[in-house]
Amino acid sequence: MEVQSVLIGGVWQKAEAPLGFFKATNPATRKNLKDNYPVSSFIDIEHALQHSLRSAYKLRSMTPQTVAVFLDSYADRIERHRDALVQMASLETALPGEPRLRSVELPRTTGQLRQAAAACRDRSWCRATIDTKNNIRSKHGALGGPVVIFGPSNFPFAFNPVAGGDFAAAVASGNPVIAKAHPGHPGTTKILAEIALEVLQESHLPPGVVQLLYHFDPEDGLRLAAHALVGATAFTGSRSAGLRLKKAADEAGKPVYLEMSSLNPVILLPGSLDERSEQIAKELFTSCTLGSGQFCTKPGLVILKQSLQSEAFFRFTLNLFRQAPAGILLSQGTLDRLGESISRMALFGAQIVTGNREPGGPGYRLENTLLRVSGKRFLDHPAELQVEAFGGVSLLVFAKDNEQMLKIVESLDGNLTGAIYSESHDKDDELYNRIEPVLRLKVGRLLNDKMPTGVAVSPAMVHGGPYPATGHPGFTSVGIPASLLRFTALHCYDNVRPHRLPEELQDNNPTGKMVRFIDGEWTQRDV
Amino acid sequence: MEVQSVLIGGVWQKAEAPLGFFKATNPATRKNLKDNYPVSSFIDIEHALQHSLRSAYKLRSMTPQTVAVFLDSYADRIERHRDALVQMASLETALPGEPRLRSVELPRTTGQLRQAAAACRDRSWCRATIDTKNNIRSKHGALGGPVVIFGPSNFPFAFNPVAGGDFAAAVASGNPVIAKAHPGHPGTTKILAEIALEVLQESHLPPGVVQLLYHFDPEDGLRLAAHALVGATAFTGSRSAGLRLKKAADEAGKPVYLEMSSLNPVILLPGSLDERSEQIAKELFTSCTLGSGQFCTKPGLVILKQSLQSEAFFRFTLNLFRQAPAGILLSQGTLDRLGESISRMALFGAQIVTGNREPGGPGYRLENTLLRVSGKRFLDHPAELQVEAFGGVSLLVFAKDNEQMLKIVESLDGNLTGAIYSESHDKDDELYNRIEPVLRLKVGRLLNDKMPTGVAVSPAMVHGGPYPATGHPGFTSVGIPASLLRFTALHCYDNVRPHRLPEELQDNNPTGKMVRFIDGEWTQRDV
Repeated sequence: MEVQSVLIGGVWQKAEAPLGFFKATNPATRKNLKDNYPVSSFIDIEHALQHSLRSAYKLRSMTPQTVAVFLDSYADRIERHRDALVQMASLETALPGEPRLRSVELPRTTGQLRQAAAACRDRSWCRATIDTKNNIRSKHGALGGPVVIFGPSNFPFAFNPVAGGDFAAAVASGNPVIAKAHPGHPGTTKILAEIALEVLQESHLPPGVVQLLYHFDPEDGLRLAAHALVGATAFTGSRSAGLRLKKAADEAGKPVYLEMSSLNPVILLPGSLDERSEQIAKELFTSCTLGSGQFCTKPGLVILKQSLQSEAFFRFTLNLFRQAPAGILLSQGTLDRLGESISRMALFGAQIVTGNREPGGPGYRLENTLLRVSGKRFLDHPAELQVEAFGGVSLLVFAKDNEQMLKIVESLDGNLTGAIYSESHDKDDELYNRIEPVLRLKVGRLLNDKMPTGVAVSPAMVHGGPYPATGHPGFTSVGIPASLLRFTALHCYDNVRPHRLPEELQDNNPTGKMVRFIDGEWTQRDV
Repeated sequence: MEVQSVLIGGVWQKAEAPLGFFKATNPATRKNLKDNYPVSSFIDIEHALQHSLRSAYKLRSMTPQTVAVFLDSYADRIERHRDALVQMASLETALPGEPRLRSVELPRTTGQLRQAAAACRDRSWCRATIDTKNNIRSKHGALGGPVVIFGPSNFPFAFNPVAGGDFAAAVASGNPVIAKAHPGHPGTTKILAEIALEVLQESHLPPGVVQLLYHFDPEDGLRLAAHALVGATAFTGSRSAGLRLKKAADEAGKPVYLEMSSLNPVILLPGSLDERSEQIAKELFTSCTLGSGQFCTKPGLVILKQSLQSEAFFRFTLNLFRQAPAGILLSQGTLDRLGESISRMALFGAQIVTGNREPGGPGYRLENTLLRVSGKRFLDHPAELQVEAFGGVSLLVFAKDNEQMLKIVESLDGNLTGAIYSESHDKDDELYNRIEPVLRLKVGRLLNDKMPTGVAVSPAMVHGGPYPATGHPGFTSVGIPASLLRFTALHCYDNVRPHRLPEELQDNNPTGKMVRFIDGEWTQRDV
């Protein structure tokens, strides 16, 4: 049997004593694709760790410019292989080649790599701080151990562990990466890693900067996240897997950044529905079913007040959900868990008003599903009814009055996003002012009059939020340069001799343009 | 029996159903002081949590200027009560009133409060980022729940939970504080809280911003750190207590910042001893015995190479340790644990060359203690021999050659600091260049030719480091404004209407001078 190689220490090699093999599946046909991929044993993991340690030391002596060249060249080379990548990703994920993969996700991915390269060149992200009186200097520096990245199922390019946002941030901040592919798209990940290795060699970066394993036992993943040689772990995926990783890393004192689950509540204030309920229904439907509802920021919970207008909104929404065909889901597991989430909501009193049936045809599909529940019932089981349903599913909560609406918001868990729709002028402002302070503290990104899907790659973006949406509310996984800080430590140099300082902390501004905090002033000048 | 009141919701009140009572002890006499303090039950904690929640919401609508006035006025008022504070702290800690408490620690404390006030006014610390094209804006904002601060024994003012660095950072970043006094100096903490409450009332800040409990059951402390209403926990103290808090907070997904333990290795390269071994011995002795060796950054581990010069250095050091009187330790517990740490080192092969005896007299004292061990033996038991000894104690490790020296450095745990002494010119540079990359990744602050005590309150200071020195290597507890970021979340505002934005993110620069990151440029201009 022919088996794909893993990438360790710059060499494509046979997995050593693999625990098993797997194939990817085409979600549109439920048929396996032809290639066999190994499930790595801990031997492969150990080898990757050793190589990444050597690479980490070498990386420290290389200039950010060298890393930037790698990231830029990698972006260029990915574009050259666009056709092969889109073809493979389409087969493995059934996401539409056009526009989604080719015109949206691939440019997003290369854009992230280029922004990370620009951050490398600019260097200002490391927050160099210089106190000349005391001769103390500090900055954020690389963690030095590898960053282990667990890629998710839903973005084969933009969150891919060898090309996505976490990868770009980890490498740009000076760390080697050990990538664990998502088993849903090993072929896509392999092509990306092949491109990465070529560019790595041309850029003269150490060979252990990009290493790839396709799969391993979950228990080995926990051992890895807790391993003494690891710098940090980045994970995007389910809450259950995320929490296990968090526990393992926390106990070992290793930083771990998790993006685990989010309902992304949308709160429709009464004036907004009086004014434009049909429009809002369309926005909700579009956002909820984008990518078959498999976006981290899909609006899974809508909070509104019982009224004639909200019932009209409900009917508009229902119609849209009923008429639209079911999108293809990423895997049998996604389909199974989606059904479980809906059943759980129903068990705790939510009414399934449409959907929740598997239509005919070979693909993994579930009809778009709308549920509703009264505010009172929601408040009886707030924990049980806040369950992520990864697909075209949303739960509408009808509050009986403003007080109950506020109580529902108070009962919410931490989320990536929270949106409030209000009347165009000031009609809803009083209620907004009561709800906003509560919602603000529960979400990373607060939106007005806008649905949460569409995570712009902007320096101001926050793709983060309080637990259990993530593991720490102070970080973001999207948005360069802020996302780089996750993979750094604060490094202080006290009385260190000038020639031994990193360039960013020497008297001369290394680029002439880098922004530094010198003696209380943000400046581009030399010391 | 007269019992001191706790401070909850702006009112000094009797502890409800206290679990017991305690008195402070004068470490110089081992005699109890007269006042009785309650050990609070969870009822007091619940009350404090409820008050702090209300205060957190109110704080959000107050300007940073109001908070700055409070911090400045508090600093002024502390200075007016200097005599009473120094007197009480001297009694409770036996630290010298002059210069330590009056001329060093008290000015440090008021200086920190004033720097925090300046950070409030400046606002640049919140890292406001504006993307005008996408109309996305973000900044660091208050966590909203209270910051629970567990104060340590060794700095009755500068790390006091109602006046020290954590307090200043938590309040300046917009959070209420629930302080747990260190039971070693409840009277000092009470005076500070009385002053704080007076100033709080004059500043029209909400009354729940400063609340004080003197003591509670450790299990209740764990419940508190994991409580749904808590924003974050800050702890400075022992590793065992810190790890228990970390586990409780981690499991609840609550941020926790711990400063737990550190050996602060000092590496003496051969050329430095050839050149100035007597001088280095004096520096080591002074740093090691400052504050009776009870500083977080005391040099507890010295790594040097076996040679005639290093033996000469050893003899100089030994003489200094032998001749100096034993300082007074903070408590019976400190004395007991110090003895245990020394015994543990001896058990694993370290030789006690001087000290480790309790001299006569009433105070808690242990003679200055020097231990030595061979590099080989150290490498046989690196975990067991890296044990914090909180007192005038240091362990010298004699490596047989450069390779072994490097191996010893590789075996080190995470530390707050690491120092390398080298010959004044370039004689040691080759070895430095091999050791530095390894040491750099294991410490928060790297020093050259300088002992680690003396933690300047500078924006460039890092009082942090990799686990187990702290819980996360990306933060610092000393150094304003960076220390404020611990108590914040990243808050993004996506398409939020202009009048609903926090001032820092509105088009107009709120101070005219605040530094913001607008469309890729650090600038003080308006949008």
